[in-house]
Amino acid sequence: MEIKNKDKAKEKYVNIGHKRMKKMEGLVCKECNREYPAEAKHVCEFCFGPLEIKYNYDAIKVSREDIEKGPLSIWRYKDFLPVETDDIIDLQAGFTPLLEAKNLAKELGLKKLWIKNDTVNPTFSFKDRVVSVALTRAREFGYKTVACASTGNLANSVAAHAAHAGLKAYIFIPYDLERGKVLNSAIYKPNLIGVHGSYDDVNRLCSEIASEFDWAFVNINIRPYYSEGSKTLGFETVEQLGWRTPDHVVVPVASGSLLTKVHKAFEEFKTVGLIEAKGNKVKISGAQAKGCAPVTTAFKNGTKNIKPVKAKTIAKSLAIGNPADGYYALKTAQETGGFFEEATNREIVDGISLLAATEGIFAETAGGVTVACLKKLVKQGKIKPNEETVAYITGIGLKTLEAIEGKVKLPTIIESSLKSFKKNILRR
Amino acid sequence: MEIKNKDKAKEKYVNIGHKRMKKMEGLVCKECNREYPAEAKHVCEFCFGPLEIKYNYDAIKVSREDIEKGPLSIWRYKDFLPVETDDIIDLQAGFTPLLEAKNLAKELGLKKLWIKNDTVNPTFSFKDRVVSVALTRAREFGYKTVACASTGNLANSVAAHAAHAGLKAYIFIPYDLERGKVLNSAIYKPNLIGVHGSYDDVNRLCSEIASEFDWAFVNINIRPYYSEGSKTLGFETVEQLGWRTPDHVVVPVASGSLLTKVHKAFEEFKTVGLIEAKGNKVKISGAQAKGCAPVTTAFKNGTKNIKPVKAKTIAKSLAIGNPADGYYALKTAQETGGFFEEATNREIVDGISLLAATEGIFAETAGGVTVACLKKLVKQGKIKPNEETVAYITGIGLKTLEAIEGKVKLPTIIESSLKSFKKNILRR
Repeated sequence: MEIKNKDKAKEKYVNIGHKRMKKMEGLVCKECNREYPAEAKHVCEFCFGPLEIKYNYDAIKVSREDIEKGPLSIWRYKDFLPVETDDIIDLQAGFTPLLEAKNLAKELGLKKLWIKNDTVNPTFSFKDRVVSVALTRAREFGYKTVACASTGNLANSVAAHAAHAGLKAYIFIPYDLERGKVLNSAIYKPNLIGVHGSYDDVNRLCSEIASEFDWAFVNINIRPYYSEGSKTLGFETVEQLGWRTPDHVVVPVASGSLLTKVHKAFEEFKTVGLIEAKGNKVKISGAQAKGCAPVTTAFKNGTKNIKPVKAKTIAKSLAIGNPADGYYALKTAQETGGFFEEATNREIVDGISLLAATEGIFAETAGGVTVACLKKLVKQGKIKPNEETVAYITGIGLKTLEAIEGKVKLPTIIESSLKSFKKNILRR
Repeated sequence: MEIKNKDKAKEKYVNIGHKRMKKMEGLVCKECNREYPAEAKHVCEFCFGPLEIKYNYDAIKVSREDIEKGPLSIWRYKDFLPVETDDIIDLQAGFTPLLEAKNLAKELGLKKLWIKNDTVNPTFSFKDRVVSVALTRAREFGYKTVACASTGNLANSVAAHAAHAGLKAYIFIPYDLERGKVLNSAIYKPNLIGVHGSYDDVNRLCSEIASEFDWAFVNINIRPYYSEGSKTLGFETVEQLGWRTPDHVVVPVASGSLLTKVHKAFEEFKTVGLIEAKGNKVKISGAQAKGCAPVTTAFKNGTKNIKPVKAKTIAKSLAIGNPADGYYALKTAQETGGFFEEATNREIVDGISLLAATEGIFAETAGGVTVACLKKLVKQGKIKPNEETVAYITGIGLKTLEAIEGKVKLPTIIESSLKSFKKNILRR
């Protein structure tokens, strides 16, 4: 157990105060606009609304050329990320390929489609983006212990980055996660804790722990910093398309944070003049699993009232029944002209297969959700054939093999002779 | 079955003849120096020696700046790759991170160590480098069907790239491969064939098939082109170090090809003047699994005579008992002042754990072999503490979970209450 280090964090905070004035002004409540200093805090003390970073955009003077000369990671967008230090914790997350998916586009009936392939991150999901930011900020605050509540991918990423940075890690996951996700956390030797219950139970427990222990819970008290890392998916999309936005994006939704941050990225690039507001309007659509689709349900019912559900889906990384940012994700889709859709377990597996067989990218169940919902939205005419679309594939298929086992054609077994080959393979 | 298309391939070959004169002069036998046109051919008709590409290095006029402006993939080194076409088959293999491994260096007693992290390729191993080159060349030759004999990673990569390119694929693997590698091939829907026997049996069968069917077997008739893709690991190392070589590199050895090509990359950059010969001498060491270490055995016995072995190791991706390029790998280590070492199954698992816990990188068994052998070589004083060293981590741990299962600490399971957390986790 660690000694409380609030004083140390505060001291650090004062030390960096002069620099903070430059771009990060503090935290602001998304509901009542009350302001706070940029500390390890995530909820407004008055209205209990979520806090987010308040930037001074006038102080962000970065050109396209500056960014293009930057590192081949999320840190090329450091001016838009809520850290002050140059001592970053970096396994080179981000700047992943944006691949034009001609075969899949043809299959679905779209003219132009790109896949943002976030399977090739250091721990093979987009969570490396948020964790690299969160842990850098946590260390800047003076924390020696980091922690998280996770459906698996976040656990892998926190464990890996903590190992690399020499930080102590407490990782909380539901007890029944996929084998790949469990082993891929265990290998980095964190304190790994399986909790009896759902992700929402794990999250509740972690909130209790966070209020008692002075640890950096990346998705609780560090959440305002952590979640900003997701913006880099939007920044990269713009840069990789040649400094312009697509017409429509499809984003998988668990807590809802990712969707709102992709949108925020597009808006921030407009705010600072890296792209023009005119001609860069993007519809933001959300993709959920049918067994855990509280935001989709609200969207389809035309209400802003999101009812928590008990999650039941093979897309465990999206199995958040009570999504923290669900309301904001819903609002973003509504305000940008986007939609919400949901995919059944069967459609998820079909989505994984379709993406792999057409484009050579092997996604986890969340990717299957995204592709399945993309397919539905095109079929329903909600994404028009000429809308240039980007789909976000946020994690690797190797972590969720359970989902496809028994559903893909296994090898035909033959003897090691030309005769056996001809008889069993060619004459089929 | 496909119609023989040799004529088509020849026609194509003539069409590109004028361009070919520029950098690729043809094929040359590594043994008797007999020359051949740059066709789909891999063995000398006279002495049965292996063929490799003959370049006209005077025609390669590329500057560091040109390369730095290139794509973020192996294709930034296109001038050194044996294709003519601009129509490349590209999932963005390569240009993977070269991470300084300060924790691991300290642990081993080295001043400077880097990990070349090839887990973050499109199908999560270095094989994407060779396959992207091989399939591009195969399509350039006019082939519609591609094939390979594989220990798993190559299978994944050929299946994925073939799916992306719309080519028909026949993939041959040993029947008893790791579940992750099998499913990660099956998902792309190739013709997937499990062969009763070892990799060497699979390879023999494929040689027979290749001589009868006019398919592009990437590691048989396309091998001279295919294997050149591995050079990009060496090119990237030089560029990422700031246009200089390290003092020592450790390369995992299966067929032996990768080791020879990393060496070739360093030499080619000297030949064309991208780096100076002076001050850029590199010792090349090889890492094998104890259960399949024919090259290491020859090295330690001081002979050039490599005796094939029956492979028995958890490092299945290195389980080639009769390595095609073993002789050349051995010679390269001897001539550069490098060494060969071998790792037991236990040492392989320890190597995987050590790399993960110190650097946050989760490698497959071959990576465990590399780290274990690196450790031994440092301990034996064969790699000196002040030698700047690069270790090549060529594939992802998620494909070989079997190797670590039961050998890592699994989560401690608790109830979702603060009380249970304090009792079971904090009081341990």
